[in-house]
Amino acid sequence: MDGENLIINLPLAPWELALGTEVAVPTLTGKINLKVPANSQNGQRMRAKGHGLLNKAGQRGYLFVQLKAVMPKSDDEAVKALWQELAQKAAFNPRENF
Amino acid sequence: MDGENLIINLPLAPWELALGTEVAVPTLTGKINLKVPANSQNGQRMRAKGHGLLNKAGQRGYLFVQLKAVMPKSDDEAVKALWQELAQKAAFNPRENF
Repeated sequence: MDGENLIINLPLAPWELALGTEVAVPTLTGKINLKVPANSQNGQRMRAKGHGLLNKAGQRGYLFVQLKAVMPKSDDEAVKALWQELAQKAAFNPRENF
Repeated sequence: MDGENLIINLPLAPWELALGTEVAVPTLTGKINLKVPANSQNGQRMRAKGHGLLNKAGQRGYLFVQLKAVMPKSDDEAVKALWQELAQKAAFNPRENF
């Protein structure tokens, strides 16, 4: 919570962040359909106007939806092989500026 | 920072969280090799004793290393296909308790 704004964590699988998805997000005024674009980042915030708290003027603030990557736990060999293939194909260094 | 404890964010690719990895992490007393186990979770904290700040007794507190998933940005079709395959094989619902 932050003044008249609300913050909610939205758990997403890594492939949902990568490929994009549409999720029904619970708000104070009912569910909204949030479109998460492809190539979204873990920790990124999206903003939904009019779905936060009521202020003195009777208007609702923003609902901030923070995208949160949730990793599946798996010891499946086929899944491991896919992660390995992805590591090779993506050729991505997450600690370039670390 | 938190008393004599230090917190550092460690950026990791999703496959590093899934498969595990070893990363050289900078600390006040030099780099340490941190072993991230397979099936680690985004946001999880690991604890390295003796690598935090000095307290009045001259002892160092903990260094907490917070694992942070960083998503690669890619429009490569082969990468997208791997994400899709992973989604199918993993059969994982990140919003089971949402």
